[in-house]
Amino acid sequence: MTITSGALRTRTELCTAVESELTTQIDRKAGAAAAYGPDFARLWTLAGKNVLGGKFVRPLLLMETYDALQQGAAQPGLVARRETAITIAGAIELLHYAFLLHDDVIDGDLVRRGHPNLIGSLLEEAGELPRPDGALHWAQTGGILMGDLLLSGTHQTFARAELPHELRLRLLDLLEHTIDETVAGEQLDVGLGDGIVAPELGTILMMCGYKTATYTFELPLRAAAALAGASAAVENSLARAGRHLGLAFQLQDDLLSTFGDPGQHGKDPFSDLREGKQTAIIAHARMTNAWQDIEPFFGRPELHATEAEHVRRKLADCGAQQFVQALIDEQMMAFTHLLTSFASPIPPAARNVLLELAAQLEGRQS
Amino acid sequence: MTITSGALRTRTELCTAVESELTTQIDRKAGAAAAYGPDFARLWTLAGKNVLGGKFVRPLLLMETYDALQQGAAQPGLVARRETAITIAGAIELLHYAFLLHDDVIDGDLVRRGHPNLIGSLLEEAGELPRPDGALHWAQTGGILMGDLLLSGTHQTFARAELPHELRLRLLDLLEHTIDETVAGEQLDVGLGDGIVAPELGTILMMCGYKTATYTFELPLRAAAALAGASAAVENSLARAGRHLGLAFQLQDDLLSTFGDPGQHGKDPFSDLREGKQTAIIAHARMTNAWQDIEPFFGRPELHATEAEHVRRKLADCGAQQFVQALIDEQMMAFTHLLTSFASPIPPAARNVLLELAAQLEGRQS
Repeated sequence: MTITSGALRTRTELCTAVESELTTQIDRKAGAAAAYGPDFARLWTLAGKNVLGGKFVRPLLLMETYDALQQGAAQPGLVARRETAITIAGAIELLHYAFLLHDDVIDGDLVRRGHPNLIGSLLEEAGELPRPDGALHWAQTGGILMGDLLLSGTHQTFARAELPHELRLRLLDLLEHTIDETVAGEQLDVGLGDGIVAPELGTILMMCGYKTATYTFELPLRAAAALAGASAAVENSLARAGRHLGLAFQLQDDLLSTFGDPGQHGKDPFSDLREGKQTAIIAHARMTNAWQDIEPFFGRPELHATEAEHVRRKLADCGAQQFVQALIDEQMMAFTHLLTSFASPIPPAARNVLLELAAQLEGRQS
Repeated sequence: MTITSGALRTRTELCTAVESELTTQIDRKAGAAAAYGPDFARLWTLAGKNVLGGKFVRPLLLMETYDALQQGAAQPGLVARRETAITIAGAIELLHYAFLLHDDVIDGDLVRRGHPNLIGSLLEEAGELPRPDGALHWAQTGGILMGDLLLSGTHQTFARAELPHELRLRLLDLLEHTIDETVAGEQLDVGLGDGIVAPELGTILMMCGYKTATYTFELPLRAAAALAGASAAVENSLARAGRHLGLAFQLQDDLLSTFGDPGQHGKDPFSDLREGKQTAIIAHARMTNAWQDIEPFFGRPELHATEAEHVRRKLADCGAQQFVQALIDEQMMAFTHLLTSFASPIPPAARNVLLELAAQLEGRQS
């Protein structure tokens, strides 16, 4: 890959670089997989299709922050270091996809953004098998195994990064912390859904932070800071800003899933209600008088559209929508304050990256 | 850990060293997990209980081979290198347990060696939950997530090994190859069971090699050779011997599962038949006239003991038991020939480690 060093790249240039990096990482694995037969190779083909169809939120955040930090640095980074940053950014996207896959297995999901996910594709391709549950079993096994391969691939990339050993160890620490926290968040989420964990608002907010903010925002930001040689103060400040943004992002996701336009977000508009997903919306509704009207419908897989529409109206009327919007506003205010305060150690160019991302997130419909 | 360097250690000393290493690795993670609440900490406690209750086949093979190779080497290894070898040996045991856990999720198994596995323990502890399938969902989620944590932990240990970077990269290559091959083997196994892959003998034997021989025998042997600084000829010869032994081991496992004494091996004696597991035994039976008597009972979950006993007798009478025993003998002969041939590059002390292991495997009842 040839990269011109120096000024900030446009979003399109960065997308192309990330895509090319991911293609390289996946093609290498897909090539080796072919030796083990068509079914194993198929896993990589499907994974490649899904990964490359993504929006690259995490790698773009890493690279834009990295470039912004380098721009402000006294010693501009070497081309080689930037190539390593792109490699790490690609690995973080594979980690995201590993988490998604295992999450889809756990939730029994076959669709993502209106299209079959890897498991859904394997299920369609399997066709009729001797046992009635055989095709789903085969497809979900593919999801577990591909998740394992991507999780391994992420670690391999971090472990082989062409960096001074101390810096490589720092990135490995970061990866370990991220995985621990994300897995803890996933377990908490499932525990809430299965009725193992009490659905208190504090627990739900903690879960959102662990499950989403850590790997989607904190990891790319900290990795960018570490790779760009930023100070601990800058790294920690970026990480705090990332956590606020991440929590706002996850809460917004919950609002969109329940109240958003399915034509835009592409999800089943009532799946959270049918699944009985314990969100901040539900935690608020539970404390109001409306709950006695909502509870009989909550977590019923057979809930039909008229009932779901009724529940949705109840959730809006009882103030749950407004309550969660206020939580989001609170996180966004804390985020803005952190970034724009006089004492912020984050260099202006890096602040702008985050402020632009926040502006995009605030207006999103999907 | 204080280790006296030099002569070969007794099996007991090695077991203690491996156990102490695994305790250190698990305690470190369990300590950090406590910050995320009792359910997350519980995963590590259960994992620790299960891992430490194992037989340490893989770490012992690595360490005995390492010590044997060092004994014969012109430059005896440093104490520090041997400590790294023990760390790697511990990580390989965690990898084994990660594979077991995801395999148990895929197979829906709740019991291993007569006791609840991690998933079975979580299921028991969950008790009554709001949804009828909630407890199993919670328990299997724990299995997926703990597998992810152990897989990550293995990579972290390899990535941080205190070794020259080139040697660390060699071990990372080995780990990558092992995971690719084991996952391909697992997928093939599930594909055979679900009727996606045609149950031909050649495919079944390939699956056994991938799924078991690679990580149980080839990985510890190659890692020992790499860590001890053995030549490529020694490493490759050890790996070939390991593959023969691994294939024999897996075929023997199939024989024990079907024809062995459940009082000794602790498994459900008819689970392979009920599951419709495509083993070499079944591949042979399918080519005989007995198959028309066996097929109606094969892969029927509700198979009762009298029927299963009938199938078992048919499998023995049609020569399938004898046929698989001959396959095992063939692998063992190839193994012995490789080790004892005049041209073998493997030093005598390392040969003895393998010959002793083979003798133990030949006589095993569980």
